[in-house]
Amino acid sequence: MLFSWQQRASIHGSDCDLSCFCQMASSNIRYGEGVSREIGMDLQNLGARNVCLMTDRNLSHLPPVKAVLESLSKNGVKYKVYDNVRVEPTDTSFKEAISFAKKDSFDVFVAVGGGSVIDTCKAANLYACHPDADFLDFVNAPIGKGKPVTGALKPLIAVPTTAGTGSETTGVAIFDYEPLKAKTGIASRAIRPTLGIVDPTHTLSMPERVTANSGFDVLCHALESYTALPYNQRSPCPPNPINRPAYQGSNPISDVWSRHALNVVAKYMKRAVRDPEDLEARSSMHLASVFAGIGFGNAGVHLCHGMSYPIAGNVKTHSAMGYNVDHPLVPHGLSVVLTSPAVFNFTAPMCPERHLDAAEILGADIRQVKRADAGAVLADTLRQFLFELQVEDGLRAVGYNDDDIPALVKGTIPQERVTKLSPREHTEEDLTELFAASMKLY
Amino acid sequence: MLFSWQQRASIHGSDCDLSCFCQMASSNIRYGEGVSREIGMDLQNLGARNVCLMTDRNLSHLPPVKAVLESLSKNGVKYKVYDNVRVEPTDTSFKEAISFAKKDSFDVFVAVGGGSVIDTCKAANLYACHPDADFLDFVNAPIGKGKPVTGALKPLIAVPTTAGTGSETTGVAIFDYEPLKAKTGIASRAIRPTLGIVDPTHTLSMPERVTANSGFDVLCHALESYTALPYNQRSPCPPNPINRPAYQGSNPISDVWSRHALNVVAKYMKRAVRDPEDLEARSSMHLASVFAGIGFGNAGVHLCHGMSYPIAGNVKTHSAMGYNVDHPLVPHGLSVVLTSPAVFNFTAPMCPERHLDAAEILGADIRQVKRADAGAVLADTLRQFLFELQVEDGLRAVGYNDDDIPALVKGTIPQERVTKLSPREHTEEDLTELFAASMKLY
Repeated sequence: MLFSWQQRASIHGSDCDLSCFCQMASSNIRYGEGVSREIGMDLQNLGARNVCLMTDRNLSHLPPVKAVLESLSKNGVKYKVYDNVRVEPTDTSFKEAISFAKKDSFDVFVAVGGGSVIDTCKAANLYACHPDADFLDFVNAPIGKGKPVTGALKPLIAVPTTAGTGSETTGVAIFDYEPLKAKTGIASRAIRPTLGIVDPTHTLSMPERVTANSGFDVLCHALESYTALPYNQRSPCPPNPINRPAYQGSNPISDVWSRHALNVVAKYMKRAVRDPEDLEARSSMHLASVFAGIGFGNAGVHLCHGMSYPIAGNVKTHSAMGYNVDHPLVPHGLSVVLTSPAVFNFTAPMCPERHLDAAEILGADIRQVKRADAGAVLADTLRQFLFELQVEDGLRAVGYNDDDIPALVKGTIPQERVTKLSPREHTEEDLTELFAASMKLY
Repeated sequence: MLFSWQQRASIHGSDCDLSCFCQMASSNIRYGEGVSREIGMDLQNLGARNVCLMTDRNLSHLPPVKAVLESLSKNGVKYKVYDNVRVEPTDTSFKEAISFAKKDSFDVFVAVGGGSVIDTCKAANLYACHPDADFLDFVNAPIGKGKPVTGALKPLIAVPTTAGTGSETTGVAIFDYEPLKAKTGIASRAIRPTLGIVDPTHTLSMPERVTANSGFDVLCHALESYTALPYNQRSPCPPNPINRPAYQGSNPISDVWSRHALNVVAKYMKRAVRDPEDLEARSSMHLASVFAGIGFGNAGVHLCHGMSYPIAGNVKTHSAMGYNVDHPLVPHGLSVVLTSPAVFNFTAPMCPERHLDAAEILGADIRQVKRADAGAVLADTLRQFLFELQVEDGLRAVGYNDDDIPALVKGTIPQERVTKLSPREHTEEDLTELFAASMKLY
């Protein structure tokens, strides 16, 4: 049975009185072409004496890392480089980075890379500043203990080189927990970067499929946060503000970011994917990634992200085009977007206006559409969008079949931190149907 | 002679290479009905032992202050109240508040009120934490010395009770410097509140004219920041990020906020003014004030604000409707909006598209309008908007005549910190004409 948002509000009723508010927080963001070349001055201003710079092997030879290292040298800032970050990090790869960070007494952390690098660097900073903590202490429940972070961390400057993650704006770090083959993460405002340096020239290094997949992450951040359960209907609602989750439901502040990011995706994403030299389009997508990051970093994501974690975590042999890695991989943005037509078809009845609004922004003509058809219209719009961007034809095309669905459902259950922000409550049967409907898209 | 933005860019040329970036920063903002009732927990979480609560005499008996004080008592937080804040503060009233703050060892500051209260509290926190500084040390040049703030301040929680100032989001504190009869201020990211608590129920206390005038402040924050000189054409451009001004010119991030705030003003301001019980409209304007605050707090304002300071500072006998104060007063929002038709008519040639865009958002039909008429169309749209909100008919209606223009121009000259963000360069003759054109509006 479906409840509208208004009905849900009255059901949750007194739970929510006075204890669900929305709070906007984001890293400081600096944006401009060439802006990463001044990071050495920022580090000097911070009084940095020993900087830990994290990146990955591919990036370590590319212009973004080169620009940052030149700026450090020019400003006489001492640093050590850790370039062993794993694309789609795991608990093992997190622990290696943490061990590197613990061995030295770093006073500032710098992450140059995509979400994998920035997330790894957040974890390294967190555990280097809490040397006695067990790794699972700060990991989200139910996999970890979800303890609140109380100690102070070192400043972290994030320099994103993909236009997708939004990790430079958020207090979230995601990894594969190998023992359970499930993605989980750490979520705390304490690990949010101090400053995000958004230099659009960096995205010119991105291969076409990386541009596409990271763009899909932006698309889903925007769509999921815009349709997430409203902030005043979330439960439980801890009365003390310090105990509230980072993901607090859609709200009037996150809505501004989510809708704006969606507009930019609609206008620029196809150009950014097709032409690596289109600086206007790639710059716009880079900023859209920041905007969507601030949106979802406060509102949260829901089913596409919750279901994406087992899709990425259970990967068998799929080899991702455009990614120079030595392991099978369903890139994060791809794992998120493949279920999006099914998911938004499912969630639409709870807030059809928002689903129609999103479909219209993405180019659908909704003038004659009934509210009851909002889900189908948004799903069709998304399928068309994905088809034009030559996305793999559903979960089957990345190596899954119907026999895998129980494992995928099982891997989604622990993702309650995000899935509970779905505007529509769901059962295991619902998840089964959503995975089944995502096997083939076109 | 007029230059387009593109021409200006090439004129400033190499000045700006690599040294003009945009940076987004804002206080954390928490929003919701009743949210101010949890401030006691926030103070407990901060470990506050001795709180300095600042407000003004009128507010000290009204529900917003009562709600905050009850929450402090309920959570066992010790505090002292300073309720002697002057509406439209002066150097004298700032110094009295500073002296109060210095006498005790406060560990957290709380401001409950409009811009005057929040700005006074920022100054009190700043100088209490720099007890050896001269008052003019941190005041903007050329009136003060404009020294950068290097020491750490105490946390400041701002609880705005008007929907206008946006002061809860910015690092700016404005006051009348009586020796020169000119407004000036302190601008530093260091004085930005730690947290803004935006409780829309507070705005139900606002009298009609206070709602109107504070709404005009929002309107002008949005219009001025949206049309401000672009961030990459500002000069001088200090190469070290730490020396960049808080007001950095319009940019892709501030644009999101400015345009959104303008949309909300267009949709809700008239309802909010006319019906004090219209919680949806008053809530929306309260959030618009935050949005515009983040926009102008990063991009800056320009001529309406620069010219408003002598309009407010030279007030003779005007008694402001709806304000319970014992001195002549041109309320800030009114002093800002009275020149807006003349100002935007003047600035339009530099970026006609943005002026047309603003006119359209405010309800004008721009389909047949030529770019050359953008200024006239926006000016007419603003005059109509002000007329419908029963705004005083120009500077003459608040006590000025043509003989006052030289003093008003003279008072605008020291406001270069903001006026230099005007997209169009201007001479004293231009300012004279702008004041003359603002004597009568309808």
